[in-house]
Amino acid sequence: MRTKTLLAPSLSALAERFARVRALTEALVAPLSDADATVQSMADASPAKWHLAHTTWFLETFILRDFVAGYALHDERFPFLFNSYYEAEGRRHARARRGMVTRPTLDEVLAYRHYVDAALLAVLADLPAVAIELVILGCHHEEQHQELLVTDMLHLMSENPLEPAIWPAMRKVPVAMPGPIGWIEGQAGIVEIGHDGEDFAFDCEAPRHQALLSPHAIADRTVTNGEWAAFIADGGYADPRHWLSDGWAWVKAEAIVAPLYWEQGEGGWTRFGLDGRRAIDPAAPVTHISFYEADAYASWAGARLPTETEWEAAASTHDPAGGNQLDGPGPVEPRPSSGGAAFFGDVWQWTGSAYRPYPGFVPAKGAVGEYNGKFMSGQCVLRGGSCATPRGHARASYRNFFYPHQRWQFTGVRLAKDI
Amino acid sequence: MRTKTLLAPSLSALAERFARVRALTEALVAPLSDADATVQSMADASPAKWHLAHTTWFLETFILRDFVAGYALHDERFPFLFNSYYEAEGRRHARARRGMVTRPTLDEVLAYRHYVDAALLAVLADLPAVAIELVILGCHHEEQHQELLVTDMLHLMSENPLEPAIWPAMRKVPVAMPGPIGWIEGQAGIVEIGHDGEDFAFDCEAPRHQALLSPHAIADRTVTNGEWAAFIADGGYADPRHWLSDGWAWVKAEAIVAPLYWEQGEGGWTRFGLDGRRAIDPAAPVTHISFYEADAYASWAGARLPTETEWEAAASTHDPAGGNQLDGPGPVEPRPSSGGAAFFGDVWQWTGSAYRPYPGFVPAKGAVGEYNGKFMSGQCVLRGGSCATPRGHARASYRNFFYPHQRWQFTGVRLAKDI
Amino acid sequence: MRTKTLLAPSLSALAERFARVRALTEALVAPLSDADATVQSMADASPAKWHLAHTTWFLETFILRDFVAGYALHDERFPFLFNSYYEAEGRRHARARRGMVTRPTLDEVLAYRHYVDAALLAVLADLPAVAIELVILGCHHEEQHQELLVTDMLHLMSENPLEPAIWPAMRKVPVAMPGPIGWIEGQAGIVEIGHDGEDFAFDCEAPRHQALLSPHAIADRTVTNGEWAAFIADGGYADPRHWLSDGWAWVKAEAIVAPLYWEQGEGGWTRFGLDGRRAIDPAAPVTHISFYEADAYASWAGARLPTETEWEAAASTHDPAGGNQLDGPGPVEPRPSSGGAAFFGDVWQWTGSAYRPYPGFVPAKGAVGEYNGKFMSGQCVLRGGSCATPRGHARASYRNFFYPHQRWQFTGVRLAKDI
Amino acid sequence: MRTKTLLAPSLSALAERFARVRALTEALVAPLSDADATVQSMADASPAKWHLAHTTWFLETFILRDFVAGYALHDERFPFLFNSYYEAEGRRHARARRGMVTRPTLDEVLAYRHYVDAALLAVLADLPAVAIELVILGCHHEEQHQELLVTDMLHLMSENPLEPAIWPAMRKVPVAMPGPIGWIEGQAGIVEIGHDGEDFAFDCEAPRHQALLSPHAIADRTVTNGEWAAFIADGGYADPRHWLSDGWAWVKAEAIVAPLYWEQGEGGWTRFGLDGRRAIDPAAPVTHISFYEADAYASWAGARLPTETEWEAAASTHDPAGGNQLDGPGPVEPRPSSGGAAFFGDVWQWTGSAYRPYPGFVPAKGAVGEYNGKFMSGQCVLRGGSCATPRGHARASYRNFFYPHQRWQFTGVRLAKDI
Repeated sequence: MRTKTLLAPSLSALAERFARVRALTEALVAPLSDADATVQSMADASPAKWHLAHTTWFLETFILRDFVAGYALHDERFPFLFNSYYEAEGRRHARARRGMVTRPTLDEVLAYRHYVDAALLAVLADLPAVAIELVILGCHHEEQHQELLVTDMLHLMSENPLEPAIWPAMRKVPVAMPGPIGWIEGQAGIVEIGHDGEDFAFDCEAPRHQALLSPHAIADRTVTNGEWAAFIADGGYADPRHWLSDGWAWVKAEAIVAPLYWEQGEGGWTRFGLDGRRAIDPAAPVTHISFYEADAYASWAGARLPTETEWEAAASTHDPAGGNQLDGPGPVEPRPSSGGAAFFGDVWQWTGSAYRPYPGFVPAKGAVGEYNGKFMSGQCVLRGGSCATPRGHARASYRNFFYPHQRWQFTGVRLAKDI
Repeated sequence: MRTKTLLAPSLSALAERFARVRALTEALVAPLSDADATVQSMADASPAKWHLAHTTWFLETFILRDFVAGYALHDERFPFLFNSYYEAEGRRHARARRGMVTRPTLDEVLAYRHYVDAALLAVLADLPAVAIELVILGCHHEEQHQELLVTDMLHLMSENPLEPAIWPAMRKVPVAMPGPIGWIEGQAGIVEIGHDGEDFAFDCEAPRHQALLSPHAIADRTVTNGEWAAFIADGGYADPRHWLSDGWAWVKAEAIVAPLYWEQGEGGWTRFGLDGRRAIDPAAPVTHISFYEADAYASWAGARLPTETEWEAAASTHDPAGGNQLDGPGPVEPRPSSGGAAFFGDVWQWTGSAYRPYPGFVPAKGAVGEYNGKFMSGQCVLRGGSCATPRGHARASYRNFFYPHQRWQFTGVRLAKDI
Repeated sequence: MRTKTLLAPSLSALAERFARVRALTEALVAPLSDADATVQSMADASPAKWHLAHTTWFLETFILRDFVAGYALHDERFPFLFNSYYEAEGRRHARARRGMVTRPTLDEVLAYRHYVDAALLAVLADLPAVAIELVILGCHHEEQHQELLVTDMLHLMSENPLEPAIWPAMRKVPVAMPGPIGWIEGQAGIVEIGHDGEDFAFDCEAPRHQALLSPHAIADRTVTNGEWAAFIADGGYADPRHWLSDGWAWVKAEAIVAPLYWEQGEGGWTRFGLDGRRAIDPAAPVTHISFYEADAYASWAGARLPTETEWEAAASTHDPAGGNQLDGPGPVEPRPSSGGAAFFGDVWQWTGSAYRPYPGFVPAKGAVGEYNGKFMSGQCVLRGGSCATPRGHARASYRNFFYPHQRWQFTGVRLAKDI
Repeated sequence: MRTKTLLAPSLSALAERFARVRALTEALVAPLSDADATVQSMADASPAKWHLAHTTWFLETFILRDFVAGYALHDERFPFLFNSYYEAEGRRHARARRGMVTRPTLDEVLAYRHYVDAALLAVLADLPAVAIELVILGCHHEEQHQELLVTDMLHLMSENPLEPAIWPAMRKVPVAMPGPIGWIEGQAGIVEIGHDGEDFAFDCEAPRHQALLSPHAIADRTVTNGEWAAFIADGGYADPRHWLSDGWAWVKAEAIVAPLYWEQGEGGWTRFGLDGRRAIDPAAPVTHISFYEADAYASWAGARLPTETEWEAAASTHDPAGGNQLDGPGPVEPRPSSGGAAFFGDVWQWTGSAYRPYPGFVPAKGAVGEYNGKFMSGQCVLRGGSCATPRGHARASYRNFFYPHQRWQFTGVRLAKDI
């Protein structure tokens, strides 16, 4: 976690925002059974119940326990179960065994949430400023887990041979195929990127600093499913010349031939989504691709991935709350209508930048300071936000990060090139 | 599965027995939530829901589908999910992924059971003799899964850091510590073992045949927790001289220092059971030990494991329905009161015999014939039945089998020696 | 290792035999370079240099060190390197890292051999009877390693993409294809098997004891390459019905489609051997098959594997020194001319018997007693001896044993059936 | 491989340099036996024989085969064996199986070298300019393999329980302990880094480009063994707060407690080196540490790693041919006398920069173009050169790269900090 100074919102607005964020999480899991909410489909994913409880543990631990005299833990056994990775907070349940916790039940976890919510709202007016900041941080933290919740639910359903849909499909409006990519010439020379300290941001987005850009252009839209199908048809997954060495090893070892959740049927490529298995929409942004795939595609297309500086410089004039982002429960997916110049929404965009500290970076103090700095090796930066990112959560300076082989998030690609 | 000719019971008696067996399974899972019934705690274990559905699939496939004209499958997608290992029945869901199937729910699986039960009972009077045999086989098959259900439930709860109890503990009557082992001199010369064809038995128990015994004696009771604690205290797990080479490698690789579910606390050894974590009872039979541990203990004790022939010859005059066996839902565990000369109940007893075919063995025909013969490599025979074996299921000729490292069943040890 | 009482040979005969055995080992490695003798091609195999040194360590440790006052170890660092698995002899180098020992060199290891040989021959006349027995044991131990040496050399060369031949091919005399298998009716009733104590045998061959046989017949020859090719052509490796469950899992996981060292070329099947890659000889016994393959073949052929009792009863009237066995360095392989009723030579024959102790078995005392008993789990008995077994080493009572998936030895199959 | 335009040296100078480089390689392997040169000690390392042959294959393939009409390959089977990773050059032997190639022998590989050297020198005067560039590239390529040869030899010897020394120790001159680190204030603002095209450089060093530096300081020497021992003594390897998340997982999984080759004895820490096992020299630069360790040390010390831009800006005024670098065969190791302000020699210095392309980077054309670009994921940049880097090979712009867990190279750490 990473805190930044923030303008104090009015308490009632904060209470309202807090309640809204917490309610959205529960709305997202409404279609889930106790079993759906308990199973862990892979080590990278967590059970829905764990997300529900962990975000609550975060509030209980860093706010109620630390700042509210006489607060009684809802259940003294929960911290061991629901700490994620805060070494300073003591021993915790092994990540890969989270799916073994059939008890407490989903209902008991929801009761835990309500207990903590009530306790927190009851004391909100009396909390010191530093704790108020933690409430705000808790809202942002919860939003991050909302996105993971949606993508982990999708992954779990994909592991069931019956491929159940979590939500019914939305009616789709036919959209014209996007034209060829247009190239936006980027700024060259010294630019400023990073968070500037007015509003909330995570610690890794700071400090705002100067960076130097070479002449370059960035695509005006992300790559589509139709373009990706052409890459496949051209043998893109079978030609080592397009691939990074690690990427090629991954493709061979995992027998990768298409984006995650794609299958080839008689009628062409289909994808599995929150609304079940359906034909791919060639006009929609491709998603569920790894960094390796994004890089190979760019190589095949004669382009490259943008750096995070290029991306942020280009995105800074766009509305981070625009585009196809998460507004409520439902079968979100990248949509063709959101093409064009939108930088936010639909898919997180892999950049060519390794996730490393900015010049002058200092982690936040205390246990919440473990939040970002310790992940700064081996991962790649993604920018923009996706259809599963709660609207309002994204910023131009937002740095998401995943390992180069991971692809169960809504990840896509926007090209760049030197000019 | 293995069929044997059998005396036709009256149809009403069979219907009653069928209903009783099916009801016991459901009684066993009554304390489970949907999540409890869905999670798979290791590759060797299966979810409770899977046991419920698989036993039903067995009846639906081999009886209703094959013998009842016009029978409509309850759900055409279920055979893929709930076939266990019958290659002849086509593709099936990977064993290690059984825990991904959050849907159908527990309630839907129970509805599946009731649909099939009703369909089967409705046609019972009209089934041909060969199908009636399959109904009887289905009852025995279900009883096998009842035992697995209990032991898999126990394993799942043991993986939860909270160590929930499935049932409250039973009140215990204090029992005197058993005295030293007494040795029963066994028959020497030619004996007959194996099933003789009057009642039901699995195919691997046949044919009844002659076998030759050397002079030997067999212990009049199984080894106790107290004796096992002495083995541990004497460094039994740290001295390679007691161990088979494969066993020693297993002890080192898995860091084994005690039976499964044992932990050392301030007050001495505890064990986890269906009633939670409690102190071990030194007078009760030791359980949850592997073949390797059983063999090492025997070596340490200057004895050996009995062969399955020795065991069966000794057990043939004992009542297979006696002793501490499963009569209904509850926190079964080996009990001190059942010591002495009982050969049945409490714990399955590892023998020194590899699980291989008897002279003249012929597998049953058809898909059910895959039941036993194909497992005849790498496994060891256990005899006797345990506290989790449904009473009435065991026989003197019954051959249970597991790999030498497995120990999540109620497995124990009875010593033997040459004389 | 396992000792038996033995008739004291004259000392000069023993000295002559000792020198001959030791010389054969060195003759076998004569074609090897220092590098050939150093590399370990898999965890199951050992470097030639290790075999040379380990057999020498055995003599130095259990005879010279223990019985010869004032004996100075050739090199005090060698026991750690060249102990195989004698736990009582202290720590030792990890088996899988044997190939890291580039130093001492092959020449230095040969010097170690010569030092120990000279020391031992110098004191032979003064050794007590128990040490003389260990000299005899040492000869038999060395013969076992000669066979491993040959098969490990073959495996190493097979891992080199250039597939070098160790020796030039021998000229072959055309041989008529063997006719169909003839069936020899075996004894039924009580027979005696096991070693009777006159000559040398390993501890696991004793005690001689009675065993009971059912009516059966055993094939008069082993299965040929031609017959095996028919099994392959009939889809034998693709049909799970023929296979044990563990065997089928092995076939799928390892992508097994033919015996080890077989490859399909334009002109049909070839095999790699000590004389390089050549066409298979359809009339020769098939070799380099696992227990799983042997069992599957037998199932496909409507037969079964013989038990070790059946095999020994049938073989007891045959000459264990006859047939195609190792007489000196050269490209040994199973030969068509040695078909017919020979029970010894060409290929070790998988039996259906698990490697377990005989009734009344007691391991030898002391460190040499670790030799056999501790391997009595998970392995299968093979009988007969192969083209790589030093002539004179085999006996009717000889029990060889390997894990069911191993096949780099010269292993084949002789069928049996119930009658 | 990466080519740059270069000033044509006189042919005789090139011939002389070529011969000198090739001779040094052979001098380095002079102490090795055939076995020493054949064994592969881990997947990351290659056998010495492979290095000898691979560098030769490079010359034979890209120069003789491609530019010399009528050239006959020395052995048509060698390209499969000795291609490293050039996908465009066809199939190749699996990297992890390089140690299986006992034949060709070391002598045969040396003959291969001499054949190719003679052929190349004979045609040198007639080669076109593009091929002359490949000769120069071949020299640099060979120098890279010289360093790997030295570090792979060291690793192999470390795997031998006897820990043989490759060379006798050099006499050491006592050196005063270095004083505390001094901090050199670095340039801030726009700097230029990267290769400028006059002399040879690998493709990844280009293009020279502007970069922006924040105010910072860089240490005037690398961290010493004595300082590292203090880090260990302070519990550095046991406190997760110092470590990146991936690094901490690595420390736990691999049980890392000290630099590679360190062992704790009665007299304190020792290290294994090319001259065997000896006490660490507290005044010498620490080496054989991973990126994770370097980063954790910096965190513990309240500093950070320099970026590669900071390093290059600071190093650009230093002599890249100075310091403790490889001049010939012998037991090279970091030396205390080379402390102070030297940027080159002793140890490669981990930077905080991920190995990614410079703005405007374009890989070289053709198969040699696979050299660098495809490794640009998951690896970290190291700068400076080590005691095993052939003198003359290093440059200020030189970018070495390894995975963050690798540490068998002579890798160390120089600190930096924001000011």
